[in-house]
Amino acid sequence: MSTLHISSAFDRDLEAIQAQIMKMGGMVEAAILDAAKSLETRDLELAEQVRAGDKAIDKLEETINEEAARVIALRAPTAIDLRLILSVIKISAALERIGDYAKNMAKRTSVLADLPEVQGSQTALRRMAREVQGMLKDALDCYVQRDAALAMKVIAQDADVDQMYNALFREFLTFMMEDPRNITPCMHLHFIAKNTERMGDLVTNIAEQVVYLVTGETPDEARQKEDRSSTDSSISKV
Amino acid sequence: MSTLHISSAFDRDLEAIQAQIMKMGGMVEAAILDAAKSLETRDLELAEQVRAGDKAIDKLEETINEEAARVIALRAPTAIDLRLILSVIKISAALERIGDYAKNMAKRTSVLADLPEVQGSQTALRRMAREVQGMLKDALDCYVQRDAALAMKVIAQDADVDQMYNALFREFLTFMMEDPRNITPCMHLHFIAKNTERMGDLVTNIAEQVVYLVTGETPDEARQKEDRSSTDSSISKV
Repeated sequence: MSTLHISSAFDRDLEAIQAQIMKMGGMVEAAILDAAKSLETRDLELAEQVRAGDKAIDKLEETINEEAARVIALRAPTAIDLRLILSVIKISAALERIGDYAKNMAKRTSVLADLPEVQGSQTALRRMAREVQGMLKDALDCYVQRDAALAMKVIAQDADVDQMYNALFREFLTFMMEDPRNITPCMHLHFIAKNTERMGDLVTNIAEQVVYLVTGETPDEARQKEDRSSTDSSISKV
Repeated sequence: MSTLHISSAFDRDLEAIQAQIMKMGGMVEAAILDAAKSLETRDLELAEQVRAGDKAIDKLEETINEEAARVIALRAPTAIDLRLILSVIKISAALERIGDYAKNMAKRTSVLADLPEVQGSQTALRRMAREVQGMLKDALDCYVQRDAALAMKVIAQDADVDQMYNALFREFLTFMMEDPRNITPCMHLHFIAKNTERMGDLVTNIAEQVVYLVTGETPDEARQKEDRSSTDSSISKV
């Protein structure tokens, strides 16, 4: 009986933390969309909101970490339960980093507002950001549902984001070669594109965590993709 | 007596894991130096060694994570002991990411070997990499010695790395504006500079972990620095 009681108490604790993960995920999704919108519409006020909002995201990660530590100390979980609680720490860390990238995008909005506009790029970046936000939503859904199949779908979808990045990279190179005045804005826009591509990688990491939790092994796709990275003369991971 | 026995058993487990952290740190330090050397000397063989060596670093992180989980499950540590064992997971994750950046630098070596050389940049990048490697060495030393003062020194030192990055960023902009043929190589060199600056941030995170472990609070420096980031029209964090 007492084990049963402890186990169900652990489940309640875990659900409470997962609820906070979902809350954090919602905040990060909003930050991605708002940052991309502020970039496209040059909305400095919205950009400032994203920057200010990141503090709440960071705070929530701290809370989740403390809560996870508290549960480990209190329930002394083992095996799968411990794996679950440790995944909470990794997933909240990934969300925090995605939030940082969104904040960084918002910060560059104010920088780019003072620079010549580069036709169409902001719209393409916003499309890319929407793709990543959709992947993040799916990754968190498959996490709470322990849905490895959906997780594999999210991992596969990252290739689209990589393609969008590669297309933008070549576009920026062209713009810079056409007109030196494009070099500085394109360097910033390129950073944003690269950081958005990295957000996709972090979402992929979350999905990989889910596959690991459900199946007990990390998907090969991750390793294959890793090995392909940076070998193209114009593209790179990290 | 039994608590005493358990506690000392935990200490032995923790020491064993920390020894693996130091081993991983040594591998990552070597990867940083070799990657930077391969970039400067265009040594494709050395670059390939760095790329191949990253797999061992990733494997070691997995081992450290499993070992930490095993210790948590076996010893059910609480309070400071739990904080210590969780810090192992965070530090090995930071080391793994620094290793990825070194691998990425090595990958770009083969790309840059086919592109026109940009005078002096590789030498400056290698200097920057040496600075980061020195910081990493100190960060790991202060971790095993629980030396918060040295950790604060490491955190402060990151400003030098940021300055080196800023100088390089402006240099690359100039090269690109002078001659469009410099644009593609400078984009790659700039990535390497940015990734090296990020290595410095990750080393800073490790040092911050140490300060937190010893003093129980994260240094304000980190937060202040975070707030300054990306507001300069040519510089950015993340």
